[in-house]
Amino acid sequence: MAEPLRIGIAGLGTVGASLVRLLARNADALQARCGRSLVVTAVSARDRARDRGVDLSGFEWFDDPVALARAQGVDCVVELMGGSDGPAKAVVEAALETGRPVVTANKALLAHHGAALAALAERNGATIGFEAAVAGGIPIVKALRETLAGNAVHRISGILNGTCNYILSRMELEGLGFDEVLADAQRLGYAEADPTFDVGGFDTAHKLAILTSLAFGTQIDAEAIHVEGISAITPLDLKMADDLGYRIKLLGVAERTATGIEQRVHPTMTPKTWPIAQVMGVTNAVNVMADPVGELTLVGPGAGGDATASSVLADLVDVARGVALHPFGQPVASLEKAERAPMQRHEGGYYVRLSVADRPGAAAAIATRMAERQISLESIVQRRSGPRSADTTGRSGEPVPVVLITYATTETAIRGAIDAMLADGYVTEPPQVIRIERA
Amino acid sequence: MAEPLRIGIAGLGTVGASLVRLLARNADALQARCGRSLVVTAVSARDRARDRGVDLSGFEWFDDPVALARAQGVDCVVELMGGSDGPAKAVVEAALETGRPVVTANKALLAHHGAALAALAERNGATIGFEAAVAGGIPIVKALRETLAGNAVHRISGILNGTCNYILSRMELEGLGFDEVLADAQRLGYAEADPTFDVGGFDTAHKLAILTSLAFGTQIDAEAIHVEGISAITPLDLKMADDLGYRIKLLGVAERTATGIEQRVHPTMTPKTWPIAQVMGVTNAVNVMADPVGELTLVGPGAGGDATASSVLADLVDVARGVALHPFGQPVASLEKAERAPMQRHEGGYYVRLSVADRPGAAAAIATRMAERQISLESIVQRRSGPRSADTTGRSGEPVPVVLITYATTETAIRGAIDAMLADGYVTEPPQVIRIERA
Repeated sequence: MAEPLRIGIAGLGTVGASLVRLLARNADALQARCGRSLVVTAVSARDRARDRGVDLSGFEWFDDPVALARAQGVDCVVELMGGSDGPAKAVVEAALETGRPVVTANKALLAHHGAALAALAERNGATIGFEAAVAGGIPIVKALRETLAGNAVHRISGILNGTCNYILSRMELEGLGFDEVLADAQRLGYAEADPTFDVGGFDTAHKLAILTSLAFGTQIDAEAIHVEGISAITPLDLKMADDLGYRIKLLGVAERTATGIEQRVHPTMTPKTWPIAQVMGVTNAVNVMADPVGELTLVGPGAGGDATASSVLADLVDVARGVALHPFGQPVASLEKAERAPMQRHEGGYYVRLSVADRPGAAAAIATRMAERQISLESIVQRRSGPRSADTTGRSGEPVPVVLITYATTETAIRGAIDAMLADGYVTEPPQVIRIERA
Repeated sequence: MAEPLRIGIAGLGTVGASLVRLLARNADALQARCGRSLVVTAVSARDRARDRGVDLSGFEWFDDPVALARAQGVDCVVELMGGSDGPAKAVVEAALETGRPVVTANKALLAHHGAALAALAERNGATIGFEAAVAGGIPIVKALRETLAGNAVHRISGILNGTCNYILSRMELEGLGFDEVLADAQRLGYAEADPTFDVGGFDTAHKLAILTSLAFGTQIDAEAIHVEGISAITPLDLKMADDLGYRIKLLGVAERTATGIEQRVHPTMTPKTWPIAQVMGVTNAVNVMADPVGELTLVGPGAGGDATASSVLADLVDVARGVALHPFGQPVASLEKAERAPMQRHEGGYYVRLSVADRPGAAAAIATRMAERQISLESIVQRRSGPRSADTTGRSGEPVPVVLITYATTETAIRGAIDAMLADGYVTEPPQVIRIERA
């Protein structure tokens, strides 16, 4: 029987407390499966007095997490403090500099400093496990780094933020507006007081940046990501999507295109038959299209102390078993600098919802602007939102919502067509444009 | 750069040929990700002359696959011959005896000899990779052996046979009978000329036996599996399921119960909202309920040369990277001998479809027989299958289908109730009984 793996935990929030409990509860199975025991020896957090529902008396306490990372009696450091810079970064660097493996759930840290930290790990013969940083309990990091190492990934797309999926699901199922559901989500603890990081798509972007690197063997490039949030989505859009066979999901998508790697986060029309379209509530899902495997979809809890602790523990099991791979699946020096595919050249279908003045010529003008840019329409739906009071021509004089679904075209073409429509004066409000992702 | 990993492939059917192509096509990425190249050096198959669409001229040819397994110039043996005994077993044993890692897609071999082969591997410092043996391209073996090694699995359930899911999907979507869809599936190559192994549930049972061992840390016990196939499922059952919010899937289920590990393969009513209920066609899916992660679902291709080759390659990547774990995640000697939970004590909901004589007292008799055994009914549906010619009492005299959905009860109770109903003489045909699995 090998020596125990002595674990130091920096950060004792929900995930840290779950991890401490879990290591105790599953100790026997872990020992059988790892050939050694996994024991917490040291902990660090801001407030020593806080009641976390776990007994910390057997662990050495560190006020300074960096001291924990360098302490005798710690073989492996778990960083659960969060934040892309400051103490979290210092802790991870200190551990790696001393050759200790690090396990972290810190997506912001990785999105901004992943390559530098991986290089530091390599230089010191250490590893960084970050299964918990993306999609909570879903083993997508391992799937990309190991299972699909022999595959060529074409596209990876995922529901990576439970808050957004919860909000969109409730808006769809209950016909409520964004603000109303957001307020409810905040009350229930599914959304932060300042929700921008989640609903603005930035949290999804951090996770996507990590997945892109793993999937394509490229350097992390979080700045390259086109980010749109969900706050402009209306119940009408969700209703129209439903009628047309789609669901609207906030997806992070990375795709290899002719012009480079495209990375984008935006509300997306997903066909209802696609597995990730069926994922509701706070659950996350990741879909990978790769050669030769085809399509894989992984569905599971995206957040929460226990699910995240499960992924932290998965990385600790690898450490205990001596599995030591490059953090991004290959040496940092071999990661390609990805060509950024410009968003203007994005190709795909579009959902465009227009508020159109209800007068002669409007439909013809819209159709002309699309045709001028070789945009083919899969469907056109015109729907009145309420009862109308028509004059004898059948027109109410009020704007009418018109929804267009296009076949594949380019971002440039669709934006050009919309600009032209706005110039024509028939469109009375800023149009809603939602990209369609096909399975 | 380390030495190349020299691979010998025994068996050159669809999967073998896919693997040879894939290793060539993704050679550069594999080298970057494994730190060494993966090269085929030797092959063996029954017919040397057959055109497989791949160039074998650079590989050493062996008429005797056992000789390949022992050959100089082979570091790792891929067994793709199939069959639970005979040459496949001899090849795997020969390789393991010489300390060479083995990668295999052979579920029958593992279901019958998995523990003995894993012990042989351990004694010789070798490994056995079998990601490809269960659920094709879905990385469920790795998920159980590595990701969930720190979790306690409660239940694992899966659509593990694409043929059955294809047949049930088409029966449901097109309202066709089993025989008709089976004949079509045979014509299209989705079902074998002798379909018993697939539609009888035996293929699913082999795969389930492997998953059970991985999930619960128990010795493989394929004989303990209760197996029912899909040939008795009718379009009426699928229609009734749909009306009641379910889909019928052939599931392999292993569950830890108070009386031991329950392993069963049978048509199952699955709630439509459950991710695996939404998987149609030849696609496979595996759902795991575990503590602390909660619920994970993995969906992907369950068969086919490319998807299976993808999983073979995933195991080869582990070998090339020096990842060497116990085949079942822990030493064979530490695998528990599972207590077999007797099927009679299975607890769950049931769908019972009866053909009931259309005369007074029938409904009362049925209800009484259920009540006598404390079986509570969630719903009762009575439906006529065709137009009826009623007499003045409203009765046609012809048998009427009656469907009961029960709350959780035991197999013993439900079978006892049905026997009593049959003895009462109101039930005119053998009843259809389908177990319900809740998410």
